[in-house]
Parts: sequence; structure tokens; C-alpha cells
Amino acid sequence: MLTLAEIAQHIGGDVVGDSEYTVSSVATLQSGQENQISFLSNTKYTKYLANTNAGVVIVSAKMVDSVPNNAIVVDDPYIAYAKAAALLNPIKENNIGVNPTAFIDDNCTIEPSVSIGAQSVIGAGVILEKDVIIGPGCILLDNVKIDEGSRLVANVTLCKDTQVGQRVLIHPGVVIGADGFGIANDHGKWIKVPQLGSVRIGDDVEIGANTTIDRGAIDDTLIGNGVKLDNQIQIGHNVTIGDNTVIAGCVGIAGSTSIGKNCAIGGGAGLGGHLDIADGVQITGMTMVTKSLTRSGVYSSGIPAEQTATWHRNVIRYRQLDKLTERVKQLEIQNKQG
Amino acid sequence: MLTLAEIAQHIGGDVVGDSEYTVSSVATLQSGQENQISFLSNTKYTKYLANTNAGVVIVSAKMVDSVPNNAIVVDDPYIAYAKAAALLNPIKENNIGVNPTAFIDDNCTIEPSVSIGAQSVIGAGVILEKDVIIGPGCILLDNVKIDEGSRLVANVTLCKDTQVGQRVLIHPGVVIGADGFGIANDHGKWIKVPQLGSVRIGDDVEIGANTTIDRGAIDDTLIGNGVKLDNQIQIGHNVTIGDNTVIAGCVGIAGSTSIGKNCAIGGGAGLGGHLDIADGVQITGMTMVTKSLTRSGVYSSGIPAEQTATWHRNVIRYRQLDKLTERVKQLEIQNKQG
Amino acid sequence: MLTLAEIAQHIGGDVVGDSEYTVSSVATLQSGQENQISFLSNTKYTKYLANTNAGVVIVSAKMVDSVPNNAIVVDDPYIAYAKAAALLNPIKENNIGVNPTAFIDDNCTIEPSVSIGAQSVIGAGVILEKDVIIGPGCILLDNVKIDEGSRLVANVTLCKDTQVGQRVLIHPGVVIGADGFGIANDHGKWIKVPQLGSVRIGDDVEIGANTTIDRGAIDDTLIGNGVKLDNQIQIGHNVTIGDNTVIAGCVGIAGSTSIGKNCAIGGGAGLGGHLDIADGVQITGMTMVTKSLTRSGVYSSGIPAEQTATWHRNVIRYRQLDKLTERVKQLEIQNKQG
Repeated sequence: MLTLAEIAQHIGGDVVGDSEYTVSSVATLQSGQENQISFLSNTKYTKYLANTNAGVVIVSAKMVDSVPNNAIVVDDPYIAYAKAAALLNPIKENNIGVNPTAFIDDNCTIEPSVSIGAQSVIGAGVILEKDVIIGPGCILLDNVKIDEGSRLVANVTLCKDTQVGQRVLIHPGVVIGADGFGIANDHGKWIKVPQLGSVRIGDDVEIGANTTIDRGAIDDTLIGNGVKLDNQIQIGHNVTIGDNTVIAGCVGIAGSTSIGKNCAIGGGAGLGGHLDIADGVQITGMTMVTKSLTRSGVYSSGIPAEQTATWHRNVIRYRQLDKLTERVKQLEIQNKQG
Repeated sequence: MLTLAEIAQHIGGDVVGDSEYTVSSVATLQSGQENQISFLSNTKYTKYLANTNAGVVIVSAKMVDSVPNNAIVVDDPYIAYAKAAALLNPIKENNIGVNPTAFIDDNCTIEPSVSIGAQSVIGAGVILEKDVIIGPGCILLDNVKIDEGSRLVANVTLCKDTQVGQRVLIHPGVVIGADGFGIANDHGKWIKVPQLGSVRIGDDVEIGANTTIDRGAIDDTLIGNGVKLDNQIQIGHNVTIGDNTVIAGCVGIAGSTSIGKNCAIGGGAGLGGHLDIADGVQITGMTMVTKSLTRSGVYSSGIPAEQTATWHRNVIRYRQLDKLTERVKQLEIQNKQG
Repeated sequence: MLTLAEIAQHIGGDVVGDSEYTVSSVATLQSGQENQISFLSNTKYTKYLANTNAGVVIVSAKMVDSVPNNAIVVDDPYIAYAKAAALLNPIKENNIGVNPTAFIDDNCTIEPSVSIGAQSVIGAGVILEKDVIIGPGCILLDNVKIDEGSRLVANVTLCKDTQVGQRVLIHPGVVIGADGFGIANDHGKWIKVPQLGSVRIGDDVEIGANTTIDRGAIDDTLIGNGVKLDNQIQIGHNVTIGDNTVIAGCVGIAGSTSIGKNCAIGGGAGLGGHLDIADGVQITGMTMVTKSLTRSGVYSSGIPAEQTATWHRNVIRYRQLDKLTERVKQLEIQNKQG
């Protein structure tokens, strides 16, 4: 239980209402009840504000008059909510020590404050710094290094030589450091190009469930500080991702492409290989990127859904576009001659 | 070995031929031999009917004259085949007890009829109801609850608080309840929005290999009864999926989107966040959905493959569409003036 | 350390420079130093050749004059580099025996030269031939068979009856043999179609991280010899893939589609079900294939990224294509009448 005054101070906001009102948990506007705190950020949800039963709502100044109960007024309600939610839900001490079913190679360097979950495997030469938490069922192959305070939730696979920075959070099913897709065609038969680089992950990175990041072919694959990756992303060998770039689910990035800092890539987008994407580029969902994007800005492709009957007609017309252009040209010539 | 009479009774069909003919296994029309049962449902395979060596074929009434051997006539051959195949291939008793290499927290509630495979991990507070089968290498974090008769095949990860209904089948590599992609930009630096909801899976759900379903941010992510999910699907936080909806492989659904009942979503489709999809909507493969679909019906987007040379030309024309429209307008003005 | 003469002989090239010069490792043109060997294949990197510090560069004859240090001249520098890199980085003996934490059913056939990593599970009836390496955390369900010299890196799941050929390399997170997506709608309720086939993988196949290959419904799913699969690919039930076909990351292939030999499918492409793709077909990245491709050739679809403002305009014009075509027709009629 925290008072509104305590929360407002933590998130840097002003209480409108009862500063001594107590809050126990967070809720949406629709489900909120007494002693719960909610927020309004996305305008799609404004319609739920007037009738919310949440005891407190975090809002911007222009919405405060519509709040039926207590309010905390801030500049950015979503940021403020995130901070309030973290304050109300502190991460519990996860130091569970080393589970006896874990298999740990004799030749490792593991700080005493490290936790290792059941059925995990720690290979030779692995280095785990202070307060690292390895959840159950994780596999760290030889010479993996993880810096202070990072956490593998469960069932994460780090292939040999992978390096992970500080305060990194990796979700289940992630595979880092598998071989890149390096093959060369030798008279009709594909031979393997040895994948000799590794993967280096910066500090404060989060990696979503079942995302894969391949090791480099010669140099390393690099993920910058503060990068946030959603689920089911595929990152090819020798990709580099700049600091604070965020990538939504199901994105695929082919080998040797370099992405700048502070980029945002929407879900399901695909980026070809050997491209340069400038700092600050935004790419909307399902966009197909086949050329370098050398200037910051917002980029898109793809045609949104329509009813299938209409779609059929338009696809047919699309296939006649070249002919249609030709017909327009003919008309222009006729008009000139006429 | 079952007789045609036994099978016909089970699937609700009429034998045309020898009711005492015996069947040992299923086969396709192309590969079928004596004592095997096949079926014709997809008309693409009609060409194989006349020459099949399968001892029995399940067909609709209008095809029965083309069956060279015995037939069972039914309304829907695919449904009837599914039932016959299940009858001929009963699932073997999988109660293998609890493997000694499994790690089980002291603080669990596990029914005596539950099976737990080798190297699995069962966290604190987990509840496993009657006849639940946990295959090898599964990881159930704290407070997971699984209802009667559900089965995790192998290597499934259920994060804390995940709730699974009855008779649910979950394939390897599935991750349920990982954190949703909740981040907020605080003056250029991304901070994590705590993911405090959970995931609730209904009854009779099937979830394909390597599919991921994220936990809710505040409320829970909800998968309805009878939902069937194929492989490699990504379901974001706070998505809700209505009863009996089916989703093919590689679909991505962004956070807070609500999908109705009895929908069918084709492979590789992508749905944006915060959308409402009505009951009974069908979406064809690789469609990009950026707006709510408020009426049932079939929706599509995307342009099918053509030869690359043609594709190049059409892409160029597409990029000139705005200009082309302008040229047509000019011609219309000229014609009016002329 | 190898001399240039030794490397040149192995890769079938001619030394231009000092045959006794020694090489210890590989490097890119940009990062190369003394005693390192690099190569030039992709012309995007030609700009780095003149100033490279790499002690040796593998090049084609036409580039040799631009090499600042030693060179080895070959027909195909990428193939030659692959061979040189393998020569300089021999795979270390991985025979680690059987880890005591592995769970192995009593009823298996395992050659003495097989390695089995920590926390792995080997089910009943499994057959592992000579020199097979099962990395840590792998799960082999009943009756899996793996032929000589194949390797599962770590955390691979092979469902029951899966058959793997010789010298196959499978990366972490791969799931082979999970049930295909076979469902039939029985008056509004989906019933499961038993998935009774298996998966057979040929020789010299490589399968990337988190790729899934479903078991067949009746017959088996088949992956030919020399097939190379990248990460996060989904292959549906009863797909067949011909010898030496290569598939890049994030491709989805729906059930019963047959792909020929020597095909190349770009990243993120999607192929519908029940299609026939001829030998030698190439499909570029993110292409949507809805019909059979019966002749070899290169196929594409999808529209590349443009600035979002332009994209918006073109999408609107696209939706009016049918009307635009009608307007052109009207103009043509007017001109004829005029």
C-alpha cells in the first residue's frame, strides 16, 4: 500500500484529490476498482475515463477534469504509469542459489551471488558476474560470459563465446550464437562457410521469447546498449544494431545489415542483407526493405487488407499496370495530334 | 484390424462393398494398398481415385461410382477420415509416472495420475490436475495451473501464473507467459513497463511448435475454448482470441487486439495492435491488417508472385500511380474542353 | 599456422607474393592484420581492398593487381575462402562421451563413439549411429534414428519416429516431428486429424535455430539431401523439399507443398499449401506464392519500402485502380467517337 503522495513524488506528478488515498495495485480504466491506480495515454481508451471505478487515474493536464476520482497529473502518463507499476510491484529477490540438478563444468568462474536454476547446463570457461540469474533449463555452451545483474528467465540457449552485458533480460526460447546461414555453391553442392565470429550483447538489452541472433561469420554480431527486441525476431550474422533501437515481433534481418541508433522497426518487417539503415529511421509493420535507408524518417510498404472480392479485382488491375500506362500514353499522343 | 462395418458405424457412413473387409491402417490414394483405408476430400486429388489400390475409400455420394474397391459413403469425407484414423490409431496410455530426473518443488499439488517426463522442472505452487502429461524437458515456473487431461509434448515453457484448461495439447518449443513488449520512451531511453497480467488458455486448445503467447500488461491474455494455433505464431500481450478460432503458422498479432469467435487466419498474416476483429472473419494468408474488421467476411491483401522481370516493371509503375492518375485527369480535362 | 603455399594447394589457387608467408586466422578486409587471410567476393566490399592490412587476400584474377600485400588467385573467392577458413579452424574433437546427467532409456541402440550432452533425454527405441553428437538439453522422443556423424548442437527436440541422415547439423531450438496442423470442422467444432506420418531428413542437411518441421498426416514429410535451412522456418506436414534446395530465414511453407531440387527461397517468403514448385526455381525475399510454379526461373512479389507519406498516396491510388482503368476506357471511347 502506498499513498498518492508517495506515488506522485516517485513519478514526478501532482495529486488532484486526496494525497493520503492508498493504492495497492494497478488496473485498466475498464477493470479498475477502489485502491487501484490506472492511466490514460492512448486516446482510444478516453471513452472509458468518465466511468472508471479506479481510485486514481494518471493523466495529462488536459484530461484531469474528466477524471471521476483522484488523479495524478503528469507530462507523460505512460512513462509515469510504468514507474508507478514498478514501484507497486518490486521484483522479488530471485537469489535461489544453485539448484542441485544443474550441471556445471568444473572450469567456470561463477560469483557467489549467482543463481542457477534446475536442469541448467553451464559449459567450460563460462564466466557469470555478480547477481546473474540463470533460470531453469538454460544452456550456456563453452566460454559464454554474462555481466552483472543480467537474467535468463528459463530455457535460453547461449552458444559458445556469446557475451552478454549488464542488466540484460532474456526470455525463454531465445537462441543466441547459432551458426549464421553461410553457404557457398561449389559446382552445384552447397558447402558450409565456417561461422567464426560470435555475438556481443550490450547493457540494458531485453530479448523476447524465441528470438534468434546468429553468430558472425568472421567479425561479431553486435547488439547495442538499450536495444529492446520483441519475440520471434531473426537477426542474421554480422548484423549490427545501434543503441536504443527497438524492434517488434517477427521481424527478420538478413546478414551484414547495419541498423542505426534510436530506430523503431514494426512487427513483421523484413530487411535484406548488406543494407545500411540510418539513425532514427522508423519502419512500419510488415514493410519490405530492399535498399539502404540513408536518412532518418518513416518508411512503409505493403497494402492493407480489403474484402477479398475487391482485392481480387485490384490484383488483376495491378498486373495490367504496364499496359494501362501504355494506353494512357496512346491517349496523350492522340490528343496532341487531335 | 477393424471391419468396414465397424468403421462405417463409428463415422456414420454407408458401406458400398464388403462389410466384413478388414482395415489395419490409413493411407493416401496414391500409396494405399490392400487392408488400408483412404479418403477423397480435396478435389485436387480426384485424379488418383480411379487407380488407387487402397482397399477402402471414404467418399461423398457423388464420387462413389469412381471408387475401384470398397467405399464408405459419408457427407464429409475429411471429418469421417479424421474419425476413422483416430479409431484405428488410439493414443497409447502415456502414464509413465514421474521420471526420477524431474525436479519438482516441494510445494506443488500434483494428482497421482499425472505423468512428468525426464529433466522437467515443476516450480513452487504449481497445480497439475488428473491425467495431465508433462513430457520431457518441460519447464513450469511458479504457480502454473494445468487442468485435467492436458498434455505438454516436450520442451514446453510455461512462465509463472500461466493457466491452462482441460484437454489442451501443447507442442515442443512453445513459450507461454513471457513478458509482453511493454516499453516507454523516457527522454530517449526505453524503460520497461512491468508486465503484471498472466495468460489463460481455455479448454480443447492446441498450440503448435515454437508458438509464443505473451502475458498481459495489466489484465490477462486470453485464448478461448477450442482455439487451434499452428506453429511459430506470435501473440502479443492482452490479445484475446474467441472460441473456435483457428490460426495458421507464422501469424503475428500485436498487443491488445481482440479476435472474435470462429475466425480463420491464414499463414503469415500480420495484425496490428488495439484492433477489433469480428466473429467469423476470415483472413487469407500473408494479409496485412491495420484496421479493425467489424463485419464477418473474407479479407485479403498482398500481391501474388510473378516473374521477377514483370514484378520489376509493375513495381515501377506502382510508384508512378499518383502521376498516372494525374495524367488521366489531364486527358479528361482536355477531352471536356475539346 | 599455415603457409600460403599450403593454403593455395588446399583451395586450388595460385600464390602471388611470398609462398612461405604464414597465416594464423581469417579476417575481413576492414579488420585484417598481418598473418591474417581475407577475401573479396561481393563487389560492395571492393572499396576496402586497396587499403587492407590483411597479410593475404583471396581474389579473382581480375582483382589481383589491387591487392596491396600477398594474394591467392582463384576462380571463386567465396568458395576458396570457405575452404581456407575450414582448414584454419578444424572442428575440435567433440567426443565428450555420455554426460552422467543425461537420461537414456534402457531400450536404445547407441554406438560407443556417440556423445550425449548434459540434461539430454533419449527415449525408448532410439538408434544413434557412429560419431553422432547430441549436445546438452536435447530431447529425442521414442524411436528417433540418427545416422553416422550427425550433430545436434543443443536444445533440439526430435519427436517420435523422426529419422535423420548422415552428417546433418541441427541448431538449437529446432523442433522436428511435431503434429501437423490437421483439423476438420465438425458442425462448428474443430476436431483433430491424427498426424500419423513422420519426418525423414536426408544426408548433409543443415537446419537453423528455431526452425520447425512438422510430421506428415499420413505419409512422411521429406527433406532431401544437401538441403540447407536457415532459422525460424516453418515447414508444414507432408511438404517435400528436393536435394540441394536452400531456404533463408522466416519462410513459411504450408502443408503438402512440393519443392523441387536446387531451388533458392528468400527470407520471409510464404508458400501456400498443395503447390508444386519446379526444380531450379528462385523466389526472392518476402514473396507470396499462391499458385504452383511449374517452370524454373526467378519469381517475386511485394512492393519495397518508400517514405510513409508517398506510401499512403500510392495505397489510396491502388484502391482506385479499378476506377482509373474505367476512366481510361471512357477516354478511349470518347477519342474513338471524337
